[in-house]
Amino acid sequence: MAKKATNSGETMKKIVSLCKRRGFIFQSSEIYGGLKSCYDYGPLGIELKRNVKEEWWKSMVHTRDDIVGLDCSIIMHPRVWEASGHLAGFADPLVDCKLCKERFRADNAPRVEPGSEIVYREGGRADGKKLKGIAPQCGYVCPNCGGGELSDERLFNLMFRTSLGPVDPLQEISNRVADLAKLDNDERRKALGEIIKESAVYLRPETAQGMFVNFLNIQQSSRLKPPFGIAQIGKSYRNEITPGNLTFRTCEFEQMEMEFFVKPGDDEEWYKYWHKERFNWYVNLGMKKANLRMRDHTQDELAHYAKACADVEYFYPFETEDGEGVWGELEGVANRTDYDLSKHSEYSGKALVYFDPETKEKYTPYVIEPAAGADRATLAFLCDAYEDETLPDGEERTVLRFHPRLAPIKAAVFPLVKKDGMPEKSEAIYRSLLDAGVNAFHDVAGAVGRRYRRMDEAGTPYCITVDGQTAEDGTVTVRERDSMEQVRVPADGIVQYLQEKLRS
Amino acid sequence: MAKKATNSGETMKKIVSLCKRRGFIFQSSEIYGGLKSCYDYGPLGIELKRNVKEEWWKSMVHTRDDIVGLDCSIIMHPRVWEASGHLAGFADPLVDCKLCKERFRADNAPRVEPGSEIVYREGGRADGKKLKGIAPQCGYVCPNCGGGELSDERLFNLMFRTSLGPVDPLQEISNRVADLAKLDNDERRKALGEIIKESAVYLRPETAQGMFVNFLNIQQSSRLKPPFGIAQIGKSYRNEITPGNLTFRTCEFEQMEMEFFVKPGDDEEWYKYWHKERFNWYVNLGMKKANLRMRDHTQDELAHYAKACADVEYFYPFETEDGEGVWGELEGVANRTDYDLSKHSEYSGKALVYFDPETKEKYTPYVIEPAAGADRATLAFLCDAYEDETLPDGEERTVLRFHPRLAPIKAAVFPLVKKDGMPEKSEAIYRSLLDAGVNAFHDVAGAVGRRYRRMDEAGTPYCITVDGQTAEDGTVTVRERDSMEQVRVPADGIVQYLQEKLRS
Repeated sequence: MAKKATNSGETMKKIVSLCKRRGFIFQSSEIYGGLKSCYDYGPLGIELKRNVKEEWWKSMVHTRDDIVGLDCSIIMHPRVWEASGHLAGFADPLVDCKLCKERFRADNAPRVEPGSEIVYREGGRADGKKLKGIAPQCGYVCPNCGGGELSDERLFNLMFRTSLGPVDPLQEISNRVADLAKLDNDERRKALGEIIKESAVYLRPETAQGMFVNFLNIQQSSRLKPPFGIAQIGKSYRNEITPGNLTFRTCEFEQMEMEFFVKPGDDEEWYKYWHKERFNWYVNLGMKKANLRMRDHTQDELAHYAKACADVEYFYPFETEDGEGVWGELEGVANRTDYDLSKHSEYSGKALVYFDPETKEKYTPYVIEPAAGADRATLAFLCDAYEDETLPDGEERTVLRFHPRLAPIKAAVFPLVKKDGMPEKSEAIYRSLLDAGVNAFHDVAGAVGRRYRRMDEAGTPYCITVDGQTAEDGTVTVRERDSMEQVRVPADGIVQYLQEKLRS
Repeated sequence: MAKKATNSGETMKKIVSLCKRRGFIFQSSEIYGGLKSCYDYGPLGIELKRNVKEEWWKSMVHTRDDIVGLDCSIIMHPRVWEASGHLAGFADPLVDCKLCKERFRADNAPRVEPGSEIVYREGGRADGKKLKGIAPQCGYVCPNCGGGELSDERLFNLMFRTSLGPVDPLQEISNRVADLAKLDNDERRKALGEIIKESAVYLRPETAQGMFVNFLNIQQSSRLKPPFGIAQIGKSYRNEITPGNLTFRTCEFEQMEMEFFVKPGDDEEWYKYWHKERFNWYVNLGMKKANLRMRDHTQDELAHYAKACADVEYFYPFETEDGEGVWGELEGVANRTDYDLSKHSEYSGKALVYFDPETKEKYTPYVIEPAAGADRATLAFLCDAYEDETLPDGEERTVLRFHPRLAPIKAAVFPLVKKDGMPEKSEAIYRSLLDAGVNAFHDVAGAVGRRYRRMDEAGTPYCITVDGQTAEDGTVTVRERDSMEQVRVPADGIVQYLQEKLRS
């Protein structure tokens, strides 16, 4: 494939490299070779992600009178996952390739016509000898070597299981090995499941269930009546078989979910409402409209409990065959009906219903759920902000055009040179910004042009420079990141000047 | 034990009840009978905890030029825990009672003189027959029944283990049961450990290791030189045998840790500095000095890698024999020396050292660590703010005297009555507060005295009431929570008035 100026994979590589170089995102445990699909947010990355989460919380909780917050423990009672269906049904079909030993998801594997001729690579390696064979009846082949000698599919649950309490499950298993050895394969696997069940707990695969099981506690303690919502930001865990593309799909990820409880019959109207609201949230934070779309789920994509679902999608610059990038999920908005509250009512024996004291009506609310990924949103804002720009004078710069409210650093303060009282003055301005709650950065060394470029790369919207004129008339320059235009502003009024800029 | 007016256990019960009634803290998965030591923060609780974390981040990161933030994945590479010593050494000694089947920590069990006469309760129940026996050689008895027929001690690792990747460890074990059955107990337990080791990962027991393994990435990408710090807020996990006292000791908890890297030799000075800083942080946020103390660790309490450690302790109103409450840890400040960076250098083969380009000196920094618990701090602020007050007129009220910056709701707005345009006016004031980022609450129903009491219970520092005079002269009353004094303020200036109050 020929390299193009806009090749998406190349862009993504540059973003990954910038992320590491400037401290946005590091590979987890990198000094130990990294850990599959785990990432750490560095000094700039954590500020960006904090701002994304803060904007979400502000728009969902703090500026609304109909939504309240919640923060649940990640480990919940195992019965929650029986009721939600995750314990029985949250699984991917896995297959082993007998030729190259690859383990892969059957539903993602390359499709072939059963009985047709296939070509595969010996051992799976790119330089392996090409062999010919017949496509298997299952209708797919190994994604690694292209071969068709495959194991049966088996369901692999995506929840992370661990053990709570003073029990060592391996010791329990060890104690009963003699009995286990007498059982056949299926019985033995089942018996092992029973042994560990006594202490087994799971890391939640979604935050949503926390809102459902707390429905009554919150509705009553906060005296709420539908329509009302419960919002939560927190980590969830899915043992994904094929993670990838930096923080787009990881086994540990952070969600921003809101469950909005409405009267049955009002659900379709609210579904449309949240559709629109959530799409606009990204646009209002500066994401380019051309890179955003809403996509309705097709009937066979819908979860069995969902009446309707649509994804807010972003056009990510991931590596693709055509080098154009690819639409991927940012957020799902779903009409979950009364499925979840009904299931938990059934499993817990507690009636999770709303009783309207005025109309004397009793009903199980329907739920509209906008479920966003904090890591995906952060990644999309990063990709959307990224630009390699050639300036009119031919100079190149890399700039992150973050919305000022999302920018990790709001303002940088420089003395033009390291003398004539300039560093003292810039230090004082820097301190006054910090005191006012404006996250600022002070950089005294190097050519001022280089310092501007470093701030462009960090996405800092304003750079303030103390220069020779400052001592004369008390003004400093304020340089705007995107236009690179400079205006002179009185140093005394710089805090207020920036606060107004950042608010608008 | 006679009940006293100040009985700590009674106070704690009232706080727990308030927490549930008003939506501060709920038991996790309560509709399923709850889950041992897991708690959820309700609408008021999450706002309180968010404010505690925000104040910490502000004081540690945003208002300082020498500390940057980090957010690591909770699942890290298993080698991290080999290097840190957690895999081998982070364990409690557990013992089983052969009489009542209690499993308990040997180091916490009641001490007795070996060979002396002991009295224990048959079956462990309070109404069980009293029996006599001889104290065992180990020097302690069962904390449940008082008996001395105990198993050997065995080490129980406190880390939560789970499995990452497309491997089902139970299936792997099942496949090898025949071989396992041939081994003796010790060999079998070890072989089981080897089988699961291929996919085993752990939930971090502390956030600190994330700072150590990212030391080079952060020092270089942020161009830092010692002294500098890396701060992180996030969840950690310890499979505690004896959790308790609401959110004081839980298996899932949130930490606020900062690792401060200094030149060896400067460590003692910085240790003293952080000592003082961290104590003052609580005081500045309104915690009563009488309920706070610094306690130096005794030599045998010190972790083997620590040169010095002191705890900031709070006097919690937990149930105690004397009904007075008890000193408990809020935060530890430790001099961890160069232990951690050295260990990770050794295990990773990467030199985690600082090279000073000016002096050409190369050294492994020492680390001063202030490690606070976000849940403990939140609980301590709650307990400290709680008061049952008898007013001069004999009326009783429950009030949470939170520092305004910590209060979940900053201001409530009421119409005195639900007519004469008052609800519309109060709604407008409420909206203007939300728009200005002041977390406010609008309450239109019920007697105004009752509405004040509800806000006292929620710890809301200011209540704004629109009354008959508002239409005449444009003023509203502002009632202060602690003094209950009211002043009239122009409705137009209410946002600014509150913002100034909240800033001071």
